[in-house]
Amino acid sequence: MRAVRTVRIGVLGGGTVAAPVVGLLRERAEDLAVQAGARLEVVHVAVADVAKPRPPEVPAALVTGDAAAVVVDPGVDVVVELIGGVDVAGPLVRAALEAGKPVVTANKALLASPEGAELRSLARSHGVDLLYEAAVAGAIPLVRALRQSLTGERIVRVMGIVNGTTNYLLTKMDEQDAPYVAVLAEAQRLGLAERDPTADVAGQDAAAKAAILAGVAFGYDVSVDQVDCEGITAIEQPDVAFARRTGHVVKLLAIVERVGEGSVSVRVHPTLVPRDHPLAGVRDAFNAVFVEGEAAGELMLYGQGAGGLPTASAVVGDVIDAARNLLAGTTAPAPERRPVRIEPPSSLCSRYYVRLDVEDRPGVLGAVATVFGSHGVSISSMEQETPERLADEEGAAGRDASGLARLLFVTHEAATGDVAATLADLDAIPAVVRVANALRILPWERR
Amino acid sequence: MRAVRTVRIGVLGGGTVAAPVVGLLRERAEDLAVQAGARLEVVHVAVADVAKPRPPEVPAALVTGDAAAVVVDPGVDVVVELIGGVDVAGPLVRAALEAGKPVVTANKALLASPEGAELRSLARSHGVDLLYEAAVAGAIPLVRALRQSLTGERIVRVMGIVNGTTNYLLTKMDEQDAPYVAVLAEAQRLGLAERDPTADVAGQDAAAKAAILAGVAFGYDVSVDQVDCEGITAIEQPDVAFARRTGHVVKLLAIVERVGEGSVSVRVHPTLVPRDHPLAGVRDAFNAVFVEGEAAGELMLYGQGAGGLPTASAVVGDVIDAARNLLAGTTAPAPERRPVRIEPPSSLCSRYYVRLDVEDRPGVLGAVATVFGSHGVSISSMEQETPERLADEEGAAGRDASGLARLLFVTHEAATGDVAATLADLDAIPAVVRVANALRILPWERR
Repeated sequence: MRAVRTVRIGVLGGGTVAAPVVGLLRERAEDLAVQAGARLEVVHVAVADVAKPRPPEVPAALVTGDAAAVVVDPGVDVVVELIGGVDVAGPLVRAALEAGKPVVTANKALLASPEGAELRSLARSHGVDLLYEAAVAGAIPLVRALRQSLTGERIVRVMGIVNGTTNYLLTKMDEQDAPYVAVLAEAQRLGLAERDPTADVAGQDAAAKAAILAGVAFGYDVSVDQVDCEGITAIEQPDVAFARRTGHVVKLLAIVERVGEGSVSVRVHPTLVPRDHPLAGVRDAFNAVFVEGEAAGELMLYGQGAGGLPTASAVVGDVIDAARNLLAGTTAPAPERRPVRIEPPSSLCSRYYVRLDVEDRPGVLGAVATVFGSHGVSISSMEQETPERLADEEGAAGRDASGLARLLFVTHEAATGDVAATLADLDAIPAVVRVANALRILPWERR
Repeated sequence: MRAVRTVRIGVLGGGTVAAPVVGLLRERAEDLAVQAGARLEVVHVAVADVAKPRPPEVPAALVTGDAAAVVVDPGVDVVVELIGGVDVAGPLVRAALEAGKPVVTANKALLASPEGAELRSLARSHGVDLLYEAAVAGAIPLVRALRQSLTGERIVRVMGIVNGTTNYLLTKMDEQDAPYVAVLAEAQRLGLAERDPTADVAGQDAAAKAAILAGVAFGYDVSVDQVDCEGITAIEQPDVAFARRTGHVVKLLAIVERVGEGSVSVRVHPTLVPRDHPLAGVRDAFNAVFVEGEAAGELMLYGQGAGGLPTASAVVGDVIDAARNLLAGTTAPAPERRPVRIEPPSSLCSRYYVRLDVEDRPGVLGAVATVFGSHGVSISSMEQETPERLADEEGAAGRDASGLARLLFVTHEAATGDVAATLADLDAIPAVVRVANALRILPWERR
């Protein structure tokens, strides 16, 4: 039996992920030592408020208030950053990397910030690991799959359901035929949505993950502010019902698509997904990432995207990797990121679903169709809903629908820019009371 | 710019996977060099018959008939074994490992044979990689996910749809309400089933993959002859129809379950899977592996399980890994396998669906129910099908069903051994014409 080495771990943060990380590392120490080839010992847990009571997994003797000291402590071999956010965590991660320590983090905001690229460069230039399996899609072993297993693969497109809250809301709107506000209130009651749900429902959380996916899938440095982002707040029952009626389901997708050599589209938007697509079956708060590779074909990875324990599982996997690499004097593959052009969404084509509330009188449909035609947007199908249903639904949303008709269009493939121009012109027609929604429909043609 | 190193690759085999492997390594050389940190150069392609014409991806100048020379050639750094089977491939892999060369293989039969354990030990003792991402579930990055990402995870159960042919057959029986023989003939016509489909439909291919999964998920050495294996040849339209009617779908699952400390059940059998389970949506020839971990929760990996190009994609991923590890002087994690007790299936419990053809007269149901009761197998529900439907379906299968009734039972959780004893006793009742099928129903209780 060979001599047992010890890898000493400094944890930054004492919250919902940190506690189970410390718990797993301590409770499963024996098994993990076999995997890592070394004993993994948590030596510090740095928290903002040392006086605050901690869960039983975190022994009081390990707790310190001095995170800045932990990251440069020569008695710490690996730093695990679970603070989140950019302002506090950023300088700490930077200091740890500069001190030559591998860093494991679940911090999507930091990785997707403009500073993320600098931190990745810093890790590379110091020859240490910066691992972040838990930052996208929680427990799903996505980052390693893309960085290692599919490393020889030319990836065409990645589409992910990467925000559990919005997927839960959309699932309930579909299954219960319930309005957005009702399912949001229920999700907040269950703790599945924040009291201020903006970061989730406006798509910003998914956008950060899209930026990270662009890096691990395509090797491009993209930051969250480069992601074209549309959330789910405009989705209403008639959209969900139309999707269901036509064999689709509305999903908020984070999408990274290769458009040309050195050019990608990175965006987040609600999408009508066909029911027989693997992503359509991803329900409730589950996450999934669908990958299309030239050789591998279609792949999907599915699992829990959030929650303390699942996220902790991914963090612990990274800690083992960091420890193994440290002992072997190597690092996980992290090829240098390449420069990239972000394709503006306006040039991308897809079929669109468009919902309009219009005045219920002759001639309106003709005027509307003329606007579509004037922008070269070809209509594939149109249906008009009964005034009764419209009155009921709009009434429930506090709008007066008397004298109105609802028009539901599906277009042939059209450029996003042309559709946007169509919608703007439609909005200017007096007979069009409301451009209620416009959603892309999968599949769209290969770029 | 640092000096470019070259890793020289010897490929064994010139078939449907070898050709695209050679093709990808040559066509994508520039990208792959970035990933691997070295130029990957195919230097030999060893084939059984040098005279046989090869696809254009394989340059004639690389072709040799002397595989034994390739594996010991000092000019070869990494050996890629794509011959398949045990007798020829086994000694070649052994020789390569003994010569200190990393081996990448897609050979499930070899890995699941009793010799597989020896080869893994040999690789470990020589400090070289033996990588086999492509051996289970083709392009799905499963092995690396289980060996690395989930390395800190205590896995409870792995259930996989790992045979594309049988999943295609079951999907078509379900979607087209077509008999087994008809969908098999169609699959053979499309090249999705072999002319002799036994290895697929009897479950042997899935059993080899189950044995490999027991290794990568649980760290146990299991060989294919230790896997309890039941194929799909007994599945008939009434079973598929019953499944559909009750919100299930029949899937052939390879299952590895932790039963106790140091004890697993490893088996392959058709199973009634609830329609809302992620595995239920895996259609046609796609594969998927569903993993349940204590911390990570439910995970599923989905993709193409076979085909030359998808399999080649996984092989190339391994080649890059082997090259990187070789240059870094390390290997992929391969903890020593632990001894294991294989739990006999008789003690495991699940709900069962049982289909009987019986004489259509009073008293028979009572006699049948008494047999169930005598073995402590409790009946949850029973239905009797119309004689017309029975006559139609049995007639189509060439059986005379006049005077018969069909009984469909669902049991409460019962031990497999007790169910087997029940079926044997039922078979001995003169009024029971045929014990047509008995299938387990997901979910079953946590072992």
